[in-house]
Amino acid sequence: MADSSSGDPATESRLTPQLTAAGRPATVTVDAINEHGAAVQACIPGEHPLTLYLDKREIVTLMTLGAAPESLVLGYLRNQRLVARLDDIAAVQVDWETDSAAVTTRSGNADVGQRLQRRTVTSGCGQGTMFGDLMESLDEIDLPDDVRLDAATLAALLDNVRRQDSIYKAAGAVHGCALAASDGEILMFVEDVGRHNAVDAIAGQMWLKNMRGGDKLFYTTGRLTSEMVIKTAQMGIPFMISRSGLTGMGHAIARKIGLTVIGRATGKHYLLFSGEHRFEYDGAPAKAGSPA
Amino acid sequence: MADSSSGDPATESRLTPQLTAAGRPATVTVDAINEHGAAVQACIPGEHPLTLYLDKREIVTLMTLGAAPESLVLGYLRNQRLVARLDDIAAVQVDWETDSAAVTTRSGNADVGQRLQRRTVTSGCGQGTMFGDLMESLDEIDLPDDVRLDAATLAALLDNVRRQDSIYKAAGAVHGCALAASDGEILMFVEDVGRHNAVDAIAGQMWLKNMRGGDKLFYTTGRLTSEMVIKTAQMGIPFMISRSGLTGMGHAIARKIGLTVIGRATGKHYLLFSGEHRFEYDGAPAKAGSPA
Repeated sequence: MADSSSGDPATESRLTPQLTAAGRPATVTVDAINEHGAAVQACIPGEHPLTLYLDKREIVTLMTLGAAPESLVLGYLRNQRLVARLDDIAAVQVDWETDSAAVTTRSGNADVGQRLQRRTVTSGCGQGTMFGDLMESLDEIDLPDDVRLDAATLAALLDNVRRQDSIYKAAGAVHGCALAASDGEILMFVEDVGRHNAVDAIAGQMWLKNMRGGDKLFYTTGRLTSEMVIKTAQMGIPFMISRSGLTGMGHAIARKIGLTVIGRATGKHYLLFSGEHRFEYDGAPAKAGSPA
Repeated sequence: MADSSSGDPATESRLTPQLTAAGRPATVTVDAINEHGAAVQACIPGEHPLTLYLDKREIVTLMTLGAAPESLVLGYLRNQRLVARLDDIAAVQVDWETDSAAVTTRSGNADVGQRLQRRTVTSGCGQGTMFGDLMESLDEIDLPDDVRLDAATLAALLDNVRRQDSIYKAAGAVHGCALAASDGEILMFVEDVGRHNAVDAIAGQMWLKNMRGGDKLFYTTGRLTSEMVIKTAQMGIPFMISRSGLTGMGHAIARKIGLTVIGRATGKHYLLFSGEHRFEYDGAPAKAGSPA
C-alpha cells in the first residue's frame, strides 16, 4: 500500500510514509451452542484496541478488526484533519504487542493542539469523535458535476458488492465499504467492526495511492448519517450508495453540497435522495432541470 | 419519566432531577426518486446534534434522533461514569433552539476533570467516546447467577420485538434497544440513529425509575461489540440478546464477567456464546457443569 505508483493519473514522485504491514487475522473461531442445544463452532470478527500516538502524543483509541491498521490510522488522521498532507507523515508503526500505532511526522512536532481541544463534535454511530468542526469544511467541498452514473452501472456495482468475498458473510458483525471505479468495478473493499473505521481505511488507502475521488463511486453497508455524508464528500467522491437508509441531517447536508446519494439499494429497489443530475435512468437524467 | 414511584421494588423517596420533555418527531418526510424514476415520498429518521453541558462545562455533542433526549443525557452521564448518583443531578434542560442539554448538579460543580482527560478509550461504532476506562469497571460487576432464561421465553421476547411498532419499520437507518422483564415482556423500547445512544437512553430511564437490572433482559438490534457488552453488564443485566453478531473482544469480556450472550437471534435460529448456566433448553441447562 506504500506504493504510490499503483494509483491514479498523478504519479509524480511523492514522499510516502514508511509503513508496517501489521494486519491481523480478521476472524476468530469460538465455541457456541445453537438453538438445538448442540455445541457448534462460530466464526466471529476480531476486535482490538489500537491507540494512536501522533509524535508521541496520545490521540485516540480505535476499536478495530485490525485487518488494515496502517490505512485506518492514515485515513483517521486525514478525515479528522489532524494532518494536512501525506508528505508530512514520515512513518506509521503499528505494534500489536502494545496495541499501538505510532505516527511520526517529518517535522516531529505535529500541531494539533487546537483541533484536539475541539474534539467535542461527534456523530455517526451517535458518539463518534470528530476533532475540529467537520461542518466547517463543507464550504471547501466542490464535487464534479460532469460525471454520471446510470442505472445499469449501479446494478453492476451492487452485484459486485454481493459477490465480494467478505468477513460479513463468514462472521457477521462488521460493516463494509467499497471504493469503485465509474464502471462499478470494486477497487478497494474494507470491512471493520465500525463503519467509520472502514471509511477511514478507504480514505487512507486513497491517500497513499494518490487517488482522486471525482471519478469514483463509494458504497457502504452502513447507515448514511451526517458524518458518513461529510466523509464521502471530503474524499471528493460525488456518488454515495448504501443498502441502508439516510438520516434527516445526512439528507440536508447531501443536498446542500450536491452529493448524489442512493439509499436502501438492495438490488432491485433503491431510492435516489439527492444529486439527481448525475443519475441516469435509461440514458435520461432522473429529473430534468433539477440539479440538487 | 421523572416519577420514581413507577419503577421497581425500591420506591423509597428519592431526589429526582427536574427534566424538560423535549422529545422531537422521530421522522421527516423527504422527496426521493425510486428505481423506476418515479417521484416518491420517503420517511427517514431525524438526526440532530445535542451538545451536553455539565455545570456549564461542554462535555460532548451527540448526534441523536432526539426522541428521548433527557433519558439519553442521563444515561450518557451514567454509562460514562461522569456522575455517580442520580441524586447528584438537579436538572436536565434540553433546548432544541440551541441544540443543547444543560445539566446542573446539586453541588453546581461536578468534578469530571480526571475523566475528561482520559477520554481516549473509544469503542463501539469503532470510534465512540468513553471517558475514563470502562474496562477498569469490569471488576466491580457482579451479575446474579440465580436467574434463568428458557428457550420459550427467548422466543416470546423475539416475537415481542418483531411486533414492536418501530421507527425502523417506517424509516430504517436506526438501531433499537429493548429492556424486557424476565417473561419477555418489553418494558422500554428506544431507537436512535446510534446504537450507543439507544442503550444510553435505556440506562437513563432505568436510573430515573430506580429499576434494577438483575431480573431483566436486554435486547439490541446492533452488533455486540466490547462496549455494548460492558454497558449491559454495567446496568446489572445478566442477559444480552441481539439479532446481530458478536465480536471477539465482546466474546472475551462476556465470558470473563459471566454475561449470558445470545447472538444472531433471528427467531428460529440463535447462538448462545457465553453464560450458558443461565439458559435452559426444555427445562435443562445448556451445558451441564460449565458456568461461563
